[in-house]
Amino acid sequence: MAGFEHTTIIGVGLIGGSLGLALKQRGLAKEVVGVGYRESTLEAAQASGAIDRWTLDLAGGVAGADLVVICTPVGMVAAKAAEALPAMKPGSILTDVASTKAAITEQIEAMLPDGVAFVPAHPMAGSEKRGNESARADLFDGARVILTPTEKTPADAAEAVAGMWRGVGARVEQLDINAHDRIVANISHLPHLIAPAIINAADEAALPYAATGLRDTTRIAASDTQLWIDIFKDNRANLLGALKQFLKEMESASFALAHEDWDALAGILDRARSRRLSLEPDDDGDSSCSGKST
Amino acid sequence: MAGFEHTTIIGVGLIGGSLGLALKQRGLAKEVVGVGYRESTLEAAQASGAIDRWTLDLAGGVAGADLVVICTPVGMVAAKAAEALPAMKPGSILTDVASTKAAITEQIEAMLPDGVAFVPAHPMAGSEKRGNESARADLFDGARVILTPTEKTPADAAEAVAGMWRGVGARVEQLDINAHDRIVANISHLPHLIAPAIINAADEAALPYAATGLRDTTRIAASDTQLWIDIFKDNRANLLGALKQFLKEMESASFALAHEDWDALAGILDRARSRRLSLEPDDDGDSSCSGKST
Repeated sequence: MAGFEHTTIIGVGLIGGSLGLALKQRGLAKEVVGVGYRESTLEAAQASGAIDRWTLDLAGGVAGADLVVICTPVGMVAAKAAEALPAMKPGSILTDVASTKAAITEQIEAMLPDGVAFVPAHPMAGSEKRGNESARADLFDGARVILTPTEKTPADAAEAVAGMWRGVGARVEQLDINAHDRIVANISHLPHLIAPAIINAADEAALPYAATGLRDTTRIAASDTQLWIDIFKDNRANLLGALKQFLKEMESASFALAHEDWDALAGILDRARSRRLSLEPDDDGDSSCSGKST
Repeated sequence: MAGFEHTTIIGVGLIGGSLGLALKQRGLAKEVVGVGYRESTLEAAQASGAIDRWTLDLAGGVAGADLVVICTPVGMVAAKAAEALPAMKPGSILTDVASTKAAITEQIEAMLPDGVAFVPAHPMAGSEKRGNESARADLFDGARVILTPTEKTPADAAEAVAGMWRGVGARVEQLDINAHDRIVANISHLPHLIAPAIINAADEAALPYAATGLRDTTRIAASDTQLWIDIFKDNRANLLGALKQFLKEMESASFALAHEDWDALAGILDRARSRRLSLEPDDDGDSSCSGKST
């Protein structure tokens, strides 16, 4: 089979729950065990069919697993790995779904026991919604999953994890782990640092008049604070680099505006427009989102 | 009637075409005349029912009108007013739909002939889409229309224009003209300056991986360049003020990140989150836009 007979998911939220549903519905796991810390969440996941059984005992939950998938927020991945690894059986594989890879991978590889492989992975799927109640079996259908194997990652383990993701409908590709972290700093983490500044800069009196301009650019500012602080911590150096590049771009735009250099400003807008249009077509419903503006 | 018997619309694009459709469908004008410079556009507008007849001759098109609505992009409003005003009949009213108000209004009021009133107006409706082919009769249904009368605006003229907008479903309110321009600099024009910088700062290699973070924050970077250059020109001083505030916010976030002051950064994200959530509920389809993210 493309999956693993005994799969344990640590953290049965949106990603973990969706993975469980997809594995079960596609027959890619004989048994999916859920590990968490809140009984009600785990019971709901079991009721939805995302997991066959659950336990609060992490070591016990991973003991018989062929594959352990850590689906917790970024800030908890290394700690959960530290708990799981000593209990995992020889020949088994640990993987994760964190959106930053280098720091976590370095920590996990430093504590890998003999006979257990770690495959760093990042499924680029999810939504502002969190939690198992938003989980759905088709979340990974057509989604991109990036594997960032290192020289310590056995090729057969990476291939087995890739096969599991392809089994649930994802497009799997590999990236150098540092290139991955630079890319996500650029296209995901930086906007999460800018959007809060945009909405915090708005006058209290102006907020009630917010239309598309402000709404679109600040939608992600409603994200969970601690989740993003942990991501910023983890990918701080790359984020600082991306931020520097952004501030340079802002300086060019500010300078053109201040000096009424409209040709320069038009050049900036033209370049941005053509880059933005190059992102289309969009899986994410851009067209349905063309809302009102001022 | 809540409208005007003879209404002329200069510029039959998204806003002008939608206004024509709404006026005709609700019986708020006996005749709607369209003025433009491209025959095919005007013919399409006539075929769609947005206008009863059209002309390329601006002076002729406005001569018999009780109300003239300039619906061109910001950069052309004052020039069109200069052409229209000498041909307008005593007792008639000129209004516009520009998203910046002070500079345009000052220019138009300086050339107002006796017996013709000008009512500055800004319907906060529209979309990234432009052109008459995107026009729809319900565009203003529930939309906000801001009137920014000055001491030169006759109260009865302002009330008549307000009645017309209420007639097509809009919520009409008044704002001080300078307060209006500061507000739109804040919540509309500033994001249109930042979004281009975000996408221009992204590495070429990172763009293919763009998910919600980048897509949402840069959707408006696909807007028309010249349209926005004209708006930036017109509202430059307020935009510079809003930009200064934004750069101050970015500096706080950058400082916290650089110095690993996670408590300060969490405070920034918390404040942004609560301000963003305070914008809900959202008419503009936020919930349907919760796409994939990294």
